[in-house]
Amino acid sequence: MKFNVLTLFPEMFDSLSHSILKRAQEQELIEINTLNIRDFSTNKHKKVDDYPYGGGAGMVMKIQPVRDALLSIANHSSENSSRVVYLTPKGKVFNQKLACELALEDELTLLCGHYEGIDQRIIDEYVTDEISIGDYVLTGGELPAMVLIDSVARLRNGVLGQNVSYEDESHYSGLLEYAHYTRPSDFEGKKVPEVLLSGNHQLIEEYRLEESIKLTLKRRPDMIKKWQKNHELSRLEQKILDKYIDK
Amino acid sequence: MKFNVLTLFPEMFDSLSHSILKRAQEQELIEINTLNIRDFSTNKHKKVDDYPYGGGAGMVMKIQPVRDALLSIANHSSENSSRVVYLTPKGKVFNQKLACELALEDELTLLCGHYEGIDQRIIDEYVTDEISIGDYVLTGGELPAMVLIDSVARLRNGVLGQNVSYEDESHYSGLLEYAHYTRPSDFEGKKVPEVLLSGNHQLIEEYRLEESIKLTLKRRPDMIKKWQKNHELSRLEQKILDKYIDK
Repeated sequence: MKFNVLTLFPEMFDSLSHSILKRAQEQELIEINTLNIRDFSTNKHKKVDDYPYGGGAGMVMKIQPVRDALLSIANHSSENSSRVVYLTPKGKVFNQKLACELALEDELTLLCGHYEGIDQRIIDEYVTDEISIGDYVLTGGELPAMVLIDSVARLRNGVLGQNVSYEDESHYSGLLEYAHYTRPSDFEGKKVPEVLLSGNHQLIEEYRLEESIKLTLKRRPDMIKKWQKNHELSRLEQKILDKYIDK
Repeated sequence: MKFNVLTLFPEMFDSLSHSILKRAQEQELIEINTLNIRDFSTNKHKKVDDYPYGGGAGMVMKIQPVRDALLSIANHSSENSSRVVYLTPKGKVFNQKLACELALEDELTLLCGHYEGIDQRIIDEYVTDEISIGDYVLTGGELPAMVLIDSVARLRNGVLGQNVSYEDESHYSGLLEYAHYTRPSDFEGKKVPEVLLSGNHQLIEEYRLEESIKLTLKRRPDMIKKWQKNHELSRLEQKILDKYIDK
């Protein structure tokens, strides 16, 4: 899967060359192609921004360099041009479902704004998806683009490796994930829950499900409602839910 | 403001040494102090993770290196130890209000998990806040920590510079922000809305407010409800809202 990234700060994306995404790039499972928008400015001072029409604080990124950067991407003007995602706090809120949807694409183009944002005419003309990673404001679209790449890339075949699954993960099953413990079983008096040492897999599974349901009920009752709606509860799930909802 | 970051991948945080946060660090408005958890492992192979008790995929970060890294931070064991934030998809969902709250602190300690997460006993013992940047899963807590630092740091005095305000921004006023335009006013036939060229500041302000309300109604009706509840609407705001809600 290829990610084209249009940004004023391509070096920021070096952060994605560590750990899991480093290996994924070495194995050519993903490719991150950064383009510096400034390189496309036809202005002799390589200017990329200007004052906003109508006044107000900050600077706005100009059309020309962004447009030319977009058009430079090989198949952008062809029939099967990739989706162009603009990262903005005004966008559709990103979630695991949208990550799964984007992971089906072969190529994605990500446009990172900086300063006050990008001239709206670029957005109207070229952007297919405006996406927000959450209800907060950042200094630019670079961190959101990295978040999007990381969450999408790890869903691609082979990226997480063979023996790692994401079915138990928070936001995949619809519940928050249970707690994890590793050795030692007793750390200065703090012990691992006994059931996890029992070797009884059915009991462990039930315990973990109960922990997941309890935690989600406590922290994210909004998620429990969706979980009930989107999925037919097993008898065990229903039994656990009844136990805690009655309280 | 000082950010202590405990991570297995400290180099990823070089991404924060660009643009606005670079200047903020040079001006000593913020300090980012990364600690490599691996440096604290007492294991002769510098091992930091192990298999999960009870089985399951992936690896869990061990207590000892994380605990010792936490205790190494100067005032951590003192009365006024900083809040310790663990970045996890199970946490409280981060938003602009929480960013404003955290920006009041002088020091924050951020703990980044990797692999399947960190032994729960560390979280029970040391973590004061579990925070999620959104309903999606990433390969580690590093990008979420960067997102948190960026959003909090830019709210500190002086970081954005004198003539930049964030009062109009999405998620600050409670509405999504209006569109921006800059020169040229006509780009290959695509024109800037005329009112923005009028020089009439009152008209421009009204136009922008109307655009904000329209966009928020369309994309985030959930935000409009909160905005109405948390703030006394001016006559103009009410008038615009009525105009679009009637439709």
